[in-house]
Amino acid sequence: MLPTRNRQVLLHSRPKGIPQAENFRIAEAVIPELEDGHLLVRHHYLSVEPAMRGWVNAVTNYSELVQIGAVMRAFAVGEVLESRHPDFRRGDKVMGMLGWQEYSAIPASAVRYKIKRPDLPLSLYLGVLGLNGVTAYIGLTRFGEPRPGDTVVVSSAAGAVGSAVGQIAKALGCRTVGIAGGPQKVGWCLDQFGYDAAVDYKSATFEADLEEACPKGVDVYFDNTSGAISDAVLKHIAFGARIVICGTASVASWDPWPAGPRPERHLLVKRATMRGFINLDHDDLYDDAVDRLSGWVSNWKIRYREDILDGLESAPGSIADLYTGANTGKRLIRLVTT
Amino acid sequence: MLPTRNRQVLLHSRPKGIPQAENFRIAEAVIPELEDGHLLVRHHYLSVEPAMRGWVNAVTNYSELVQIGAVMRAFAVGEVLESRHPDFRRGDKVMGMLGWQEYSAIPASAVRYKIKRPDLPLSLYLGVLGLNGVTAYIGLTRFGEPRPGDTVVVSSAAGAVGSAVGQIAKALGCRTVGIAGGPQKVGWCLDQFGYDAAVDYKSATFEADLEEACPKGVDVYFDNTSGAISDAVLKHIAFGARIVICGTASVASWDPWPAGPRPERHLLVKRATMRGFINLDHDDLYDDAVDRLSGWVSNWKIRYREDILDGLESAPGSIADLYTGANTGKRLIRLVTT
Repeated sequence: MLPTRNRQVLLHSRPKGIPQAENFRIAEAVIPELEDGHLLVRHHYLSVEPAMRGWVNAVTNYSELVQIGAVMRAFAVGEVLESRHPDFRRGDKVMGMLGWQEYSAIPASAVRYKIKRPDLPLSLYLGVLGLNGVTAYIGLTRFGEPRPGDTVVVSSAAGAVGSAVGQIAKALGCRTVGIAGGPQKVGWCLDQFGYDAAVDYKSATFEADLEEACPKGVDVYFDNTSGAISDAVLKHIAFGARIVICGTASVASWDPWPAGPRPERHLLVKRATMRGFINLDHDDLYDDAVDRLSGWVSNWKIRYREDILDGLESAPGSIADLYTGANTGKRLIRLVTT
Repeated sequence: MLPTRNRQVLLHSRPKGIPQAENFRIAEAVIPELEDGHLLVRHHYLSVEPAMRGWVNAVTNYSELVQIGAVMRAFAVGEVLESRHPDFRRGDKVMGMLGWQEYSAIPASAVRYKIKRPDLPLSLYLGVLGLNGVTAYIGLTRFGEPRPGDTVVVSSAAGAVGSAVGQIAKALGCRTVGIAGGPQKVGWCLDQFGYDAAVDYKSATFEADLEEACPKGVDVYFDNTSGAISDAVLKHIAFGARIVICGTASVASWDPWPAGPRPERHLLVKRATMRGFINLDHDDLYDDAVDRLSGWVSNWKIRYREDILDGLESAPGSIADLYTGANTGKRLIRLVTT
C-alpha cells in the first residue's frame, strides 16, 4: 500500500540573516499519482547545510532563491517505493535535491546519485559520500593538486568538508595540518581525522603554532574560512602553493567589501595560485568522486562525524546552530529508523 | 684585429631604493684570451630594466644580488667576433645576460637566444622579442588562457610588457582594454597598440570608464601594478576570470604588507583564479615564444616603442627614470651604430 499523504517543510517568510525556526512551517500535501518516467521516493535522511542561508536570503548568491510557500530545498536520501522509469526499481536507494519532506515524486533525472553500495550507511550519502565529501575531493584533487609529501593545511579542519579534505590528503601521502577552534575540535582532528598536526586558531599562540606545524611551508591551503586564519596561513605558503577557496565562513559580511592584507606580491614571489571553486560546477566528477570516497570509507581511511536530529519537526530550527558551531558533525534529519 | 680592452659599468655602492648614477662607476678591463667552448661577443645594445632595482638592493627578491665591484647584470645583444664553440660562428647574433659592458667572453651556454632572424632589428631581442615580449606571451597564453572574444584588461598597458600583452591578445581574437596613466599613454594604447579601448587611471572618471569599457566583464586581467587599479578591475571580473599577476609597480613598499579589499569571496563567487608568475620559471618556452612573436612583429601585428640612450656613459643614470615614467618605451643603451 503506497502512502498518499506527504508532510513538508515550507519556507514561510524570508529571514534576514540566519534562518530561524519561525521562517518555516510544516504542511501536509497529497502525493500525486506517479507520472511516466517518475519515481516515488521515501526519504530516510534530510540534509542541513550552511548554504541554506544563501538559498533563502534575498542577497546575491550563486543559487536560485527558494520561493515563499515552496518546499525547502535540501538534499535527501531515500528508497524508491515505486518506479515508472526503466533504470530504477523498487528498493533502489537514491540521493538528490529532493527537499525537506517525507516523500518526493520526481522525474528520474532528479536523482543525483544512485547508490551502488547499500552496505554503507545511507546517511553517508548526504555527508562524506555526498556533497561534503565530493566538494573535498574535487577541490583538493583538481585544484589543490596535492603531491605526496606536500604539506596540506585545512581550515574548519574538523568540519564536514574539512575533515574529508584532511583525510583524503593523508590517503594521498601528504602531511596534513588542521586548523580548528577550541581544544575539542583540535582533539577530533588529531584523534579521529588523523591530521599530523592540529592548531587552535582561538589560542594566543596560534601563529607560532601554525609556523611550527609547517616547517617546510604550506603547499596546499584548503580555505573554508577566509579572514585572519587565512592571513596567517598565507604568510607561510611555499613556492608554487595552491590556495583553494571553498568557503569564507569566518567573514560575517562582504558588503561592504572587508579589507585585509594584499596578497598580490606574495602570490607573485611565491608563484602561488589562489582560486575559488564551487562543487556545483563539477557535476561530471560526482560519480567518480563518490566511488573513490566509498573505497576509502570502507577501508577506514576516512572517518566522519554525524549530528543527527530526529523527525521532520526538528528541521525548521536546525540551521541556526550551524552558525554557532554547536553541531558536532554533519547535521542530518532522520525520518526513518531502519 | 680583435679588441683587447673592454669598458664595463661596475656596481660601486649599494643603493637604498632606486639606483642612481653614483651607485655605479665605469672601469676598463683586459679581454682575456678566449677559452675553448667560449665566444667573444661585441655588445650592440644593453638593456635597462625596472627589475635592476631588485638586483642591486639588499632586500629579499627572487634574484641573486649583484656584488659590489662586479659588472652590472644586464641583458645585452651583440655579434660574435670569435667563436671557439662548434655551434657558433663569427657574425652570429646572440642575446644573453651579458652585462653592462662593451664586450663579453662567455661560455656558449651563457647565450640565452641565438638570433634566427637577423632581418629584424637587433634591439628588439631586448624588448618585444626579448624578456618583455616573452613575459607577455607566456603570462598571457599559459596563465591567462585567452579565448577568442574574451575581454582582456592590461595594466601598464603602454609599457614594454603591457603593450605586447594587449597586441598578442588582439592577435588571438580578444577584445583588449588598456589601463594607462595620462592622455599621452592612453593615446599610444589606442593609436599604436591597437587596444579596443583604453582608460586613464589618473582620471576622476576611471572607475566608470573602466566599467563602460568592459560591458561583458573582464575574462583575463594581466596585472602589472596591483593597488587601486587592480581593485577597480577586480570588481568587474567575469565568471571564471583569470588574473595573472606579473608585477606590482603601483605599490611602493610591501613591508609592512599593505591592506586592500579581500579578494576571497569574489574569487569564490566568480570561480576566478589569481596567480603570480615569473618568466624566469618558464625558460623552456623562451625559444617558441620568440619565434611566435617574430612572426607577429614581421607582419605588423605587434608594434613597439623604444627609448634609446647612446653610449656606455648613459648607463649608470638610466634606471632612475624608469620609476618616474619618463621613458617612452623599452629603454636601451646603444653601443654600436650600424
